[in-house]
Amino acid sequence: MTMNKARQVFPRREYLRRLAAVKSEMARRGADALVVSFDRNMNYLTGYTARSGYIPQGLVVSMQEEEPTIILRKMDAPAAHHQTFLARDRVIGYPESLIGNPEKNGYDAVIDFVEELGAANLSVGLELGNLPPPALDKFRFRLPRAKIVDFTSVITWIRMIKSDLEIALMREAAAITDAGILRASDVIRSGVREADAAAEILATLARGANGKAGTSLASFWMNSSPRTGTSHLTWSDEAFRDDSQINLEIAGVRYTYTAPVSRTFSIGRPSDRLRRVHEAQIVGLDTALETIRAGRTCSDVAQAAHRALAKHNVQKESRYGYPVGIDWTEQTASLMEGDMTVLEPNMTFHVHLGNWIDEDFGVMVSQCIRVTESGVEVLTKAPLKLFELPSAA
Amino acid sequence: MTMNKARQVFPRREYLRRLAAVKSEMARRGADALVVSFDRNMNYLTGYTARSGYIPQGLVVSMQEEEPTIILRKMDAPAAHHQTFLARDRVIGYPESLIGNPEKNGYDAVIDFVEELGAANLSVGLELGNLPPPALDKFRFRLPRAKIVDFTSVITWIRMIKSDLEIALMREAAAITDAGILRASDVIRSGVREADAAAEILATLARGANGKAGTSLASFWMNSSPRTGTSHLTWSDEAFRDDSQINLEIAGVRYTYTAPVSRTFSIGRPSDRLRRVHEAQIVGLDTALETIRAGRTCSDVAQAAHRALAKHNVQKESRYGYPVGIDWTEQTASLMEGDMTVLEPNMTFHVHLGNWIDEDFGVMVSQCIRVTESGVEVLTKAPLKLFELPSAA
Repeated sequence: MTMNKARQVFPRREYLRRLAAVKSEMARRGADALVVSFDRNMNYLTGYTARSGYIPQGLVVSMQEEEPTIILRKMDAPAAHHQTFLARDRVIGYPESLIGNPEKNGYDAVIDFVEELGAANLSVGLELGNLPPPALDKFRFRLPRAKIVDFTSVITWIRMIKSDLEIALMREAAAITDAGILRASDVIRSGVREADAAAEILATLARGANGKAGTSLASFWMNSSPRTGTSHLTWSDEAFRDDSQINLEIAGVRYTYTAPVSRTFSIGRPSDRLRRVHEAQIVGLDTALETIRAGRTCSDVAQAAHRALAKHNVQKESRYGYPVGIDWTEQTASLMEGDMTVLEPNMTFHVHLGNWIDEDFGVMVSQCIRVTESGVEVLTKAPLKLFELPSAA
Repeated sequence: MTMNKARQVFPRREYLRRLAAVKSEMARRGADALVVSFDRNMNYLTGYTARSGYIPQGLVVSMQEEEPTIILRKMDAPAAHHQTFLARDRVIGYPESLIGNPEKNGYDAVIDFVEELGAANLSVGLELGNLPPPALDKFRFRLPRAKIVDFTSVITWIRMIKSDLEIALMREAAAITDAGILRASDVIRSGVREADAAAEILATLARGANGKAGTSLASFWMNSSPRTGTSHLTWSDEAFRDDSQINLEIAGVRYTYTAPVSRTFSIGRPSDRLRRVHEAQIVGLDTALETIRAGRTCSDVAQAAHRALAKHNVQKESRYGYPVGIDWTEQTASLMEGDMTVLEPNMTFHVHLGNWIDEDFGVMVSQCIRVTESGVEVLTKAPLKLFELPSAA
């Protein structure tokens, strides 16, 4: 039997809008066909969410055709029939003989399709930054007459400005994030194992909020004493103690749209140093949010926050945030001095005052926001404070 | 203050053993220095688990030095001081000015270090399959006199044969997996939302088993009716129904060591077709496990399982499994016809009778095993059956 289509997350016109933006870049860069290999971009253009990107796959966009064609391992094709807006004949499942085969792999199926399209002698866009060099060698060897055009990050830049439909999902995701932060404030206690607290917070992120389930889990970072100077660890297998500080960075997810936030928790009374730095960082965060609006640059925001921190004698080396959307970070602009990207309405950012000051001391506070014409909409609503949790003593 | 070392997961001699195996391959391939960029391999050689691989980083192994040197973004260096066996001067944090910078990035810091080592005119190993082409271009441009040697998958092949210390972690991970499967059999019920069941199972995987916490979460696949013909979806936002079939594939994790398993669940009485195919696949799985022992090939195992299925009129196109260890799949051998890799003691495999027969029908059953001289040790102990769960009706 054939696979039925699922209820679609976005209407067809939304995908056609995204494809039109991509085709406009193809025209500008002179690409007749484009092979999208970055799985987040494949998701953006089709609605495909299956986690099959650990093996070769691709989405081919042609200037000649309204719908693109997705080329997947055969066992992943039914997920594409189910999830994407694509017509049945726009989903190609390549055979299992291309798995674990040193001679041919899934990129050969993608190249076969590019040849069938008649694009082998034309100009073909590739996301070079998302292809391993052996795959690029294969494209060059098998398509010797094609002109290769680099499309690294091109679609990711298009993704930066969200539609209102995407913003609605970001709001739902942020509500889930908030629920996770509140759950954290209930379960982080002295004597509780970090893993047990993480279990409760992760379960909350999966259950979701307001009747809307989390649709997958994003990265989860819990950097607790003595590791508050680190930024990318999950929980440890130890228990929290009286006086533990916990830097938590989590995100709810709705159909790949991810709204991250971070908060700092202290079991018992925070140290004077933590209190002072956190207070300064709240001022820095407020200043960043007051600066953000359409027309300002990323650099403007970073400079304003930097000055506000300096007034409180706090230095911060790392950037003040980055755009977010599908699967957390969009690797495009950064809120840092010198980044002259101009903010536009419906860009979404994780404005991050994370500050890793010493090897063994860092403080985190952030918000997930939407840029508007006149300022920001703050998507995350969890209390903006240093959480002081009861100690056992 | 400087960061203290955490309790080490493995003793120093274990890392030196792994490095000796890598250096032996370097000698064989004539590499004076090796840049490890695949994060799982960096973890294998140092104990570093932070999830910072979304930005450039590298581990440089030199034939002249006992310990390698890890080069990370400055904010990730404290995690390396904390987690790895490396001496303090073997951890280099590169400045934030290399983040979001179109001219220079973290690979420049790695190349600087290769130059300092005096290896710029020598032979340098790179994991080409784990570098984006622009990074490879940078290595070639900045090290024009170095001879580049491809080390793609070389360390992954070394990882295939585990030490007894690694096997101990695989057993602990498998016990967590089992707890997840049992939890699934308790919480998957008609009317329960998939997300709520997933939340409970995920929480179990984080809490762990036998007093040993899960140390992170692995991939989580729940392909339920009408999606049992798909293989790589997470949960949906729907509720289970009477007669739902659920194909669940999960894994417990201990310090990155991952023990996956899959089971099929039926709410209410399974269909005759599901029952018949599942029974055949159990026979196929048993046959595979009876065939596995040191000295046999991957192909032997696949052929035996294939014949056993054929006797029951079941065809399966996909491979019969793959090696597992750090972060689920090791991309090396496959249990498939024609793969002449010889099994050796302490290889660990996910022996997988997953079978996606129609677009809307598939069945999963598998075990996580260790190869021994005389056969297998089955690491996963969850009941090997088609789980029939009570229906509401």
